[in-house]
Amino acid sequence: MIRPDETLDDLIIQNLQLIQKKKGFRCTLDSILLGHFATVKKGDRIIDLGTGTGVIPLILSTRADNVKIIGVEIQEEIAEMANRSIKLNNLEKDIQIVEGDIKEIHKELGGSSFNLVTANPPYWSLKDGKSSPAASRALSRHEIACCFEDVVASASKLLNNQGRFSLVYCVERIIDAFEILRHYHLEPRRIRFVHPFYNKPARHILVEARKNAPSEFEVLSPLIIYKSQGEYTKEILTWYGKEVD
Amino acid sequence: MIRPDETLDDLIIQNLQLIQKKKGFRCTLDSILLGHFATVKKGDRIIDLGTGTGVIPLILSTRADNVKIIGVEIQEEIAEMANRSIKLNNLEKDIQIVEGDIKEIHKELGGSSFNLVTANPPYWSLKDGKSSPAASRALSRHEIACCFEDVVASASKLLNNQGRFSLVYCVERIIDAFEILRHYHLEPRRIRFVHPFYNKPARHILVEARKNAPSEFEVLSPLIIYKSQGEYTKEILTWYGKEVD
Repeated sequence: MIRPDETLDDLIIQNLQLIQKKKGFRCTLDSILLGHFATVKKGDRIIDLGTGTGVIPLILSTRADNVKIIGVEIQEEIAEMANRSIKLNNLEKDIQIVEGDIKEIHKELGGSSFNLVTANPPYWSLKDGKSSPAASRALSRHEIACCFEDVVASASKLLNNQGRFSLVYCVERIIDAFEILRHYHLEPRRIRFVHPFYNKPARHILVEARKNAPSEFEVLSPLIIYKSQGEYTKEILTWYGKEVD
Repeated sequence: MIRPDETLDDLIIQNLQLIQKKKGFRCTLDSILLGHFATVKKGDRIIDLGTGTGVIPLILSTRADNVKIIGVEIQEEIAEMANRSIKLNNLEKDIQIVEGDIKEIHKELGGSSFNLVTANPPYWSLKDGKSSPAASRALSRHEIACCFEDVVASASKLLNNQGRFSLVYCVERIIDAFEILRHYHLEPRRIRFVHPFYNKPARHILVEARKNAPSEFEVLSPLIIYKSQGEYTKEILTWYGKEVD
């Protein structure tokens, strides 16, 4: 089930395993953070936009009972790889990988029909000029196939009234991100900043917006990744079922 | 110099002292946080809008050499009290308290003529219905004499090109605050969230915006007030010149 250019990585949570490319397309910590940040309720109908390796659906499937998750991926080869990860974990009943364009997917899957949309959208626009070596990684990091606004527009179409949109984004562009979310009737309500160390600036932001919800805003406790170089904080270790003192 | 309904409080930094009302108008921790957050450069011309007790100018005067600070206060009695604090600390050469309305003050003091504007603007609009018992405190906490937008508009008029606007605000309304700042050409560039404890949501945000500056954004390390109940963190203690291990 694993090809020569792929690795099999252990997500540890409930023994989930993930197929990834040795070079190029691999999931990042941001996706794992998002999988743990999103509010997931029993019976939720969930869609992950630009699912990549399928890591977000895999984590979300452990967060509540009876959830049904669709992961949408535009790249055929990556969608196929994600599909094998789902099969490897025997989660075909809960998670479905759909090859498709997020700009059109609401026509196929139905608008206003999901409780939760998740996305780890591209952070940089093409004009920023930082390009990834591998073409498939470039596609997910840069706004080639879709731009941030397309992701937000798609989420807004897919969500039912009061539905949740959870995303991870880079700190540099959050003011623009807030404006775009509001433009699409997705009110940012709960955010959390991710700092590599407690005394360092935040690199990422986790955002939960709600469709057609009134303005109300909470900034959760900071999420700190490392206690010291190479040593995860208690919070991160807890996700991985590690013993902590 | 101190009246029967007032107290004399020690700000500790460089032996500064502050006159406050026993009941009603007293400075809050937010103002002290702002005094330490703002970027202050040698020779800066600074204005503090709605200065109250004058606590922000007093702290700012210790942050760089040769700064000239004006504190604007609309309430005569409070302006007079702030003035006595300035005299008590022998800082009349560096700090001047002006009784006036922030909506009109640029006409008297000159537009585009300050390097730094600071403000701890009112957090709640009148419709929120939380009113303070003392009338003077109500005036500073609620948008009676001025609303948040008036403070921003005034800052924008007073600042020179690329000048800094530093403010402290409540977390609940920051998305609106960002929109209003941008509307007045004040680009939020550096923010810091204030959490009472490291594992609790933020209550306040410190923002530094720059006039006519391009979009660039940094979220600094979280500012945590208490290590445990009643025990300040090292960072706070450092401001107060306390010995820390």
